[in-house]
This record gives sequence, C-alpha cells and structure tokens, in this order.
Amino acid sequence: MTDAARDIAFSRTSLDEITPELIDRILEHLEHGRVDDIRAAVSVLSPAGMAYLLEQVAPDPRAQLVGILKDQLDPQTLVELDEEVRDEVLDILEPKDIAAAAQELDTDDAAEIIDDLSEVERREVLSELPAAERAAIEAALSYPDYTAGRLMQRELVAVPDTWTVGRVIDHCRDATDLPDDVYDLFVVDADRRLRGSVALGRMLRTKRPVPIVDIMDPDIPSIPAAADQEEVAHIFRDQNLVSCPVVDDQRRLLGVIMVDDVVDVIDEEAEDDLARMGGVASVDIHEPAARTTRSRFWWLFVNLGTAFLASSVIGQFESELQRIVALAVLMPIVASMGGNAGTQTVTVAVRALAMGELTAANALRFVTKEIIVGGANGFMFALIVGVVTWLWFHDTRIALTIGAAMVINLVAAALAGTLIPLGLQRLKIDPAVSSSVFLTTVTDVVGFLAFLGLAALFLI
Amino acid sequence: MTDAARDIAFSRTSLDEITPELIDRILEHLEHGRVDDIRAAVSVLSPAGMAYLLEQVAPDPRAQLVGILKDQLDPQTLVELDEEVRDEVLDILEPKDIAAAAQELDTDDAAEIIDDLSEVERREVLSELPAAERAAIEAALSYPDYTAGRLMQRELVAVPDTWTVGRVIDHCRDATDLPDDVYDLFVVDADRRLRGSVALGRMLRTKRPVPIVDIMDPDIPSIPAAADQEEVAHIFRDQNLVSCPVVDDQRRLLGVIMVDDVVDVIDEEAEDDLARMGGVASVDIHEPAARTTRSRFWWLFVNLGTAFLASSVIGQFESELQRIVALAVLMPIVASMGGNAGTQTVTVAVRALAMGELTAANALRFVTKEIIVGGANGFMFALIVGVVTWLWFHDTRIALTIGAAMVINLVAAALAGTLIPLGLQRLKIDPAVSSSVFLTTVTDVVGFLAFLGLAALFLI
Repeated sequence: MTDAARDIAFSRTSLDEITPELIDRILEHLEHGRVDDIRAAVSVLSPAGMAYLLEQVAPDPRAQLVGILKDQLDPQTLVELDEEVRDEVLDILEPKDIAAAAQELDTDDAAEIIDDLSEVERREVLSELPAAERAAIEAALSYPDYTAGRLMQRELVAVPDTWTVGRVIDHCRDATDLPDDVYDLFVVDADRRLRGSVALGRMLRTKRPVPIVDIMDPDIPSIPAAADQEEVAHIFRDQNLVSCPVVDDQRRLLGVIMVDDVVDVIDEEAEDDLARMGGVASVDIHEPAARTTRSRFWWLFVNLGTAFLASSVIGQFESELQRIVALAVLMPIVASMGGNAGTQTVTVAVRALAMGELTAANALRFVTKEIIVGGANGFMFALIVGVVTWLWFHDTRIALTIGAAMVINLVAAALAGTLIPLGLQRLKIDPAVSSSVFLTTVTDVVGFLAFLGLAALFLI
Repeated sequence: MTDAARDIAFSRTSLDEITPELIDRILEHLEHGRVDDIRAAVSVLSPAGMAYLLEQVAPDPRAQLVGILKDQLDPQTLVELDEEVRDEVLDILEPKDIAAAAQELDTDDAAEIIDDLSEVERREVLSELPAAERAAIEAALSYPDYTAGRLMQRELVAVPDTWTVGRVIDHCRDATDLPDDVYDLFVVDADRRLRGSVALGRMLRTKRPVPIVDIMDPDIPSIPAAADQEEVAHIFRDQNLVSCPVVDDQRRLLGVIMVDDVVDVIDEEAEDDLARMGGVASVDIHEPAARTTRSRFWWLFVNLGTAFLASSVIGQFESELQRIVALAVLMPIVASMGGNAGTQTVTVAVRALAMGELTAANALRFVTKEIIVGGANGFMFALIVGVVTWLWFHDTRIALTIGAAMVINLVAAALAGTLIPLGLQRLKIDPAVSSSVFLTTVTDVVGFLAFLGLAALFLI
C-alpha cells in the first residue's frame, strides 16, 4: 500500500489516530497542567480513539484526563471502553454526568453501562433520567446478561399493516427523531405482532398508493428476547443479516438487534474460546494484578494435581530409573509430544463444536480421521526419536522402547483429543474450559506409563 | 425460553433446520434412490442450511446429493460451504453451472469461488460469463487474497454531487436492478472521487429540491483497495460501520464492503488466532487426513527439537538423578507448572497484541504486572508443592529445593510469556504462531535447570 493511500484510509481509525507521539504529548501537557492544550489535542478524536487513548495511559493520568475532559466526553466513548477501564472512569463521573450520557445512547448501550454501576449509584443515575428513558433502560435490565433482550435497542420504526407506502413515507418525514441508522421498517398488526419487514431501498422504489403489506418480506427471521447471545450471533452469521427483530413469546415486536452489536458479541465469543483454551478467565490486560493472580491460581492448582498424578506414575518405576538413568533423561520427550499432538486435536475439536460443525452425524468420521493422523505422525516421530536416541545412547533397546511409546502416546492423544471434548459437550460442560486439563493428564500418564512400563518389561 | 418461542425463532436458522433425523431421512432416501423425496426434503432449506447439510454427510453421499440437486442448488450455498467441501462440490459441477451461479452472486463472492478453481476450469467458467461480469470478476481477482479489493462488491449506488434529492430518488426508482441491501448512497465528483455518503433514511426525510451535497456526510471513512482484511475488520469494529466504501489511491470510488463480509473476516481471524495458538495450520475438520498429518508434522517436529533440548539439560545431571531418584520423579512438575503459567500469559499477550491493546505505551506496565502475578502465584505454589513433597518423601531439603525452583520458573514464565510475543511482534513475526514453542522451551529448560541445578548445589 502506498503511503498516500494509507494516509487517506486510516486517518480516521482509532489505532492510527492515537500515535505514541500523541500519547507522549498529552502526558506532557498533563504534567505541566496545560488543560487547554489537552482539550484541543483530543477534540478531533473519534469516540473509539478517545477510548483507546484512555486505555493506553496508566491509571493515574487516566483519572486526571477524565477529570479534565468529563464535560466534553462523547457518551459513545464509554461504550467503547474495556470493562475494567470503564469501571474506573464511571467511578470518577458524577451520577448526573452518567445520566446525561445514558440519555444520548441507544437503550442497549445505556443499559450495559448502568449495569456496571453499584446498586446505590444505579438508583441515583436512573432517578436523574426522564421517565420514558428510565422505563426503557429498566426493561432492558430486566433481561439476563448475554441475552437478545439485553442486546436489542428499542429505537426502531414499526408501522401498522393497514398503511400505504405513501403514509409510511410521510410518517418517516414527520418523525424528526428517527435515527439515521434505520435500514429496515417493521410491519406489525393491531396487537403489535410482527408481520414482516421492508428494506428502505425497496420502499423508495415503490409508488405511494401501494399497501405496505404488498412489498413487505413476510418470511423474516426473528429472535426471542430470552435467546442467548451466542445463538443470536449464529443467526446473523448464517443468514448474513444486518438487523433482526426481537419478539416476545407471542411474537410481539420488542426491539431490534443491529449487526454492529453482534460484531462485539462475535469478538467476545472468540475471545472467550481463546481465553478458555489458554487457561485464563479473562484476556483483559487492564484487570488488576491481585484479581489476575487469584483467577489464574485455580487453573494452575488443577494442573498441579495432574502433574502430581503424572509424578506418581513415574514413582512406580523408581528402581528402573535408578538402574538406567537414560530413562529419566528421555521420559519427558514422549509426554511432551503427546501433549502437543493432543492440543492440536483439541483445538480443532473445540472450534468445530463451538461453530456447530462437529455433530453426532460426523463425530465417528472425525475421531477416525484423528486416529489415522495421530498414528501416521506417531510412526514418523517414532523413527526420528529412535534414531536420535540411538545416536545419543548407542542402545538399540532404549531406541525401540521410546519409538513404541511414541506411537502409543500419539494415538492416545488423538483419542483423548477427540473423545474428551465430545464427552464434555454431551455432559453440557464447555469443552474449551476443561479439555486441555484432562488431555494433558491422559498424555502425561500414558506417556510416562508407556515408556517406563515398556522399559521395565523389555530392558530389565 | 419457552418451546413456542424457540419454534418461532429458530425455525429458520441453519443449525436448527438440519436435525440429525433430517440427515438420516435424506441418507435413507438416497440409499433407496428416492430422488423426488430428496428434492422435496431440501426444497425448504435456506442456503446456509443446505451448506450445513452437505458438510455434515460423508464425501460419498455428498457427491451423490450434489449430482441430484445441482440444478436446484441456490448459488449462495456455494458461498456458505467450508472451503474443503466447496472444492469437492465444485469438482462435481460443470463449468456452465458454476458460471450460472457466479452470475447471480455479488462480485466478491463470485471471485472467491472462481479463485478456488484450477487454472483450466477458471478460464472455462470465465468464458461462459457475459463480458461485463467477466471483467468485474477479473478485476476482483487482480487484488491479492485477503485485501479490501477482494472483499468489496461493485454493486453500489453512486450519484454525482450536482444532483438534487429528487433526482436521486427518481434515479433509484428507475434503476430496477438495484439490490435491496443498499443502505447508503455514495456521492462522487466528476472524476468519480468520493465526496461523502447519504443514509437512505436521511434521504427519505428530505425535501426533493435539496441538493444531495447538503445532506451528505462528508466525513466518512474509506478503505484503500490494497488494505489487509484485518485492517478492514479493525475499522468496522472501531467505528461500528455497516458498510464502507473502497477507494483507489486517487480516492476514486471502486466498491463497497458490507458488514456481513466483515463478520466472516472476524470469524476467520479469530479462528486463525486459535489455530496458531493450538499449533495447527487449519481448524477445517473437512481437510483430508493426509494433508492434516503433513501440516501438523512440522509443528510437532519443532517441538521435538525443544523436547530434546530439555532432555539434554536433564542429561547434565545424570549422576544426581542416579543418587536421588526422587528428583526424576518430581522434575516434570516444575516444568509443567511453568508451561501452564506461561501459556496463560502468552494467551493474554497475543490477544492484546492482535487487538492493538498492547503497545509501546503500556508494554512496561504489562510486563511488570505479569511478573507480580507470576511471583505471587509462584510463592503460593512453592508452599503447596513443598508441603506435598515433604509428605511424600519426608525430606525437607528436597521440599525446599522444589519450592525455590517453582518460584524461579513461574517468574521466568511471566518474563518469557510477555517478552517473547512482544519481541516477535517487533520482528514482524506473528506472535500467535511461534510464541508457545519458544515459551515451552524456556519453561522446560529453566524448570529442569533450576530444580536439578539447585539439587546439585544443596543436596549432594
């Protein structure tokens, strides 16, 4: 890409508007108390850029910046902030500032922010809001976290099924408070039950006297308010939707979910998968050290248990280890290769399960394939490790033993890497969280047992 | 969620329309050659549902199904298929079938499918297409994979900056081939340079004589055709976009990227991160076993090298191991805990780097925090592992040695887990691919060296 093209394109993206130099300059202004210079420097930033800036600086200057900028802060900035940083920022703002921000935001965003507050603050903020907005936000908060009811916004255009195109257009013209980001109108019956939708572009191309029901698409998906956000993401993904109406169990229209909120959900879900596979509860780098230490402790604690289990297997072979010390030198290799091969299989299985690609219909084919892959790589690595071992210790029997153990452990890794996530899924336990603990337990135990056990049988 | 609500909501999602029973029924029809029953059963499926069905069945019935259904296959089905399965399906279809499908699809989707074909087939398919479509697809193929130029579609509405709202509306009314999914119009100057955009909803609410430039938003983001798709996803994410124009280096309008294509990109990128962290090249479960074996081989090969490196460290302490066999029993514990703690840190670092949250401005704070977390958990696990070791072997000095090694290795894991991804990123190497190999090398070597080295110093 040419520099010119890059300048044009990225002049407005958050990542490029916040350069290290800009951060340094703002921190310098802050140190010297140059409030006006700070205001000028940040006045051109987008909400995402402002949020990014606040995330990049340390907690102390962050608090000072928020104190200085609180009356020029775009409410959207609060939406863009990472949760940990947002909590800090909300602590600094007064309830009336938060209420003013909430009033400018879509219901779903306002509810998300107010949900982060303490019980006392929440009541204070809500009491500052006009009755209609308060009711809308309280209604949103009545749905559990991570459901369609939380994600949806109430700002939408619903028209009766008795209207003509002309009347709908006049209605849109008169309602000056309609948001710009309306792409579809919804048609409802007298009981506000959803009958269909009309794309704006379609309406624009239709003559005024035509009844709106004649051009509506009656065959549109809808999502119940109680649906999990992961299911919402699936529907948007599968059907390439830009927006989707949310209904109650009588199919009455409650709100609409926009695709940009779903993009956030998809990011969150991907982040969750990655975090669980890596054994962390949160990938938020702004989480305080004490909380991070605590949350990681338990994962490591479970792993310590499995490590002791593996050690107890080794402990069964103390006399063999004492007689042939090469066994102690080589034994981590078999276990380590099994762990790595199993992790490869688990990664594929967990992702395929999360995306709904791995099901009862093709599970057997998947397991079979992974065993073939594990066996094939097992034989190749048996050869390699056998040759290297022979070159190192000049002992054919040790070389044969480690080769045999390698094949056994890589096939065991394939079996464990497929059956553990499939089994956990069937037990309704998230396979991303627990698969790798069970997996390394299997590959460590089988790895040490196969190598040392075969050695005990054939070498001594 | 009530059953009724679920029935309403998910009646149209691919995952729910394809039940195991439906798959069994279709396979049974296939076995008995009941072609009409198959046609009837799949006629109600959405393109995503049809794709999902084809992915779920084994290669043989898949080929038979495609053979039977090829003239009623919705072109969108080809877009929804996983790449491996799509290759199989394309092999069965005739060039003229593929050309007919390509003609109905948006340019970006058609180009993606044609790009999968062999050189010969591609030429055949292109020659079946009308000149205009062929030119559009060839233009799309001229951009490298994974760029904005590939993602964009050419179907858009661009109007001259000299027109009024009324003239634009008349233009839209007359152009009957306008797609329904147009949400924004683009305003261009005489040289087709992008001047701004107008949301359809806004235009609908404006009087006819108003010049279009008066209501356009001049301050819109645009993306150069050569931009990487990851940057495209960043822009959509940061600015909550539904569509974004693509321009050449003169800022001339070339096409538009829609958010549903970006959702696919975000899924791909998340999948890539997960795959790389798990040491696999692809999470596509439909990849043939031979290819999977080959692609996983190299990751395991590199890991074998690091395992031998760790073994060579153990080899330095043969005489100590022979004298105190408890060392051999316990030594995998320190290495394993270091590996797990380091993976936690690497997971957070890789994700934060990918999302642009970890930068030069806050790297030092991040490293410091991780060292504190590693040290704190190191001390707690030193205590636990020390007590368990004492209970097992009744040897205070071994217990103290393993405790000290634990603290050292968990701090080393924190250092390696932060500095390795940061260093790789600076060297422009993807940290997701290589961090974990380097990390486990460090935690294995330091783990064995600290435990056996301290034992050699203090126990013997």
